[in-house]
Amino acid sequence: MTTTETPTIAEPPTERTRLKRYHWLGKYDRETIDAIIDASIVCQVGYVINSEPYVTPTNHWRIDDYVYWHGSSASRMLKEQQRGIPVCFTVTHVDGIVFSRAAFNHNVQFRSVMAFGKAELCDEEVKRKALEVFVDRLAPGLWDYARKPTEQEWKATKVIRMKLDEVSAKVNDGLPDEEPEDLATNLWAGSVPLRLAQLEPVPDPKLRPGIEMPAFVKNYLYTK
Amino acid sequence: MTTTETPTIAEPPTERTRLKRYHWLGKYDRETIDAIIDASIVCQVGYVINSEPYVTPTNHWRIDDYVYWHGSSASRMLKEQQRGIPVCFTVTHVDGIVFSRAAFNHNVQFRSVMAFGKAELCDEEVKRKALEVFVDRLAPGLWDYARKPTEQEWKATKVIRMKLDEVSAKVNDGLPDEEPEDLATNLWAGSVPLRLAQLEPVPDPKLRPGIEMPAFVKNYLYTK
Repeated sequence: MTTTETPTIAEPPTERTRLKRYHWLGKYDRETIDAIIDASIVCQVGYVINSEPYVTPTNHWRIDDYVYWHGSSASRMLKEQQRGIPVCFTVTHVDGIVFSRAAFNHNVQFRSVMAFGKAELCDEEVKRKALEVFVDRLAPGLWDYARKPTEQEWKATKVIRMKLDEVSAKVNDGLPDEEPEDLATNLWAGSVPLRLAQLEPVPDPKLRPGIEMPAFVKNYLYTK
Repeated sequence: MTTTETPTIAEPPTERTRLKRYHWLGKYDRETIDAIIDASIVCQVGYVINSEPYVTPTNHWRIDDYVYWHGSSASRMLKEQQRGIPVCFTVTHVDGIVFSRAAFNHNVQFRSVMAFGKAELCDEEVKRKALEVFVDRLAPGLWDYARKPTEQEWKATKVIRMKLDEVSAKVNDGLPDEEPEDLATNLWAGSVPLRLAQLEPVPDPKLRPGIEMPAFVKNYLYTK
């Protein structure tokens, strides 16, 4: 399968992050990488326990050169990760389905990021600041609006972070470069774009009467 | 954080697949699991090379008790996996953003599947049948319509599968069970549902004039 060639903007930071297959889809500039990370709220974190692979979907957010995720202080995943084990952080967006002339060329359009690094348990100060950023990243103004955590809630939460050193992105936004003999056929080809759409907000059925929907919910945009 | 309790339908197949955190979100019945797997076209596969974790997003499809993914015969990932190494297969859907009264309770609604198993390289017969199913799963009728693979294209493609034995799902479709003192405040709570929407098909700019869009594209539904 071949795909329309686009220029590679920067060099991969390490051999492991250099795209081997469809290398022309590789992007190594932080602007592209950060945009892909920030456009999603759920990542997949890979790690190893007793030589076995684990992949856990979890909420993530980014502050400058670090990606963060959080969980219960009792979480099995976080207990392992706080030892500083290697992790593989990935984010994936599915942007469309590609219909090609040749069965061999069918594909999806996507944007993904893969980062390798070591998990790092955040200390209390970094944790509290990072969780405030996480809540405000859901919707700006949400932290000030919401009831702040109790000391017990703070204790129940751990935050892990990973530095974005060894990171690459892969962007497939085109159509396959089909063979001249396929282009000459009477077969249709093209794509069906996919987008994550948001519906109208749904109030909690337990909402007390007369409580107005805050502006940050009314104006909420998942895709900024 | 607590979430409205829903009955667990079946028992987890192994201790590793038993949900420890928020165990009431765990589902172990194959109907729920299969629906989550089939509703997506992109999974994340975790595996270990030299004790380091790797997570690769890739297209997947399911036939009965197996999930399949494919790639280039030269792919580094598939070369490792065809040795029968342990893999962790995951699928995640983000269904909504939860706004709660307490900062500590903010969350997302999601459906996810996590399966542990060993990768298995498909033989030529299983591979050819599986790729036909993959293409028809993109859109029914597409295999018959498209130009069939050449022997060279068949050789360039490998298919890996994994049996769905050790598998669990996690479904969070509700709102957090907030504390009585939070419910009594004048703070708003609710959710913003998210859905993967499809746009109008975009024909390949290289399409020859007069080629009609086939019915399977016109009637295409990403979410069946």
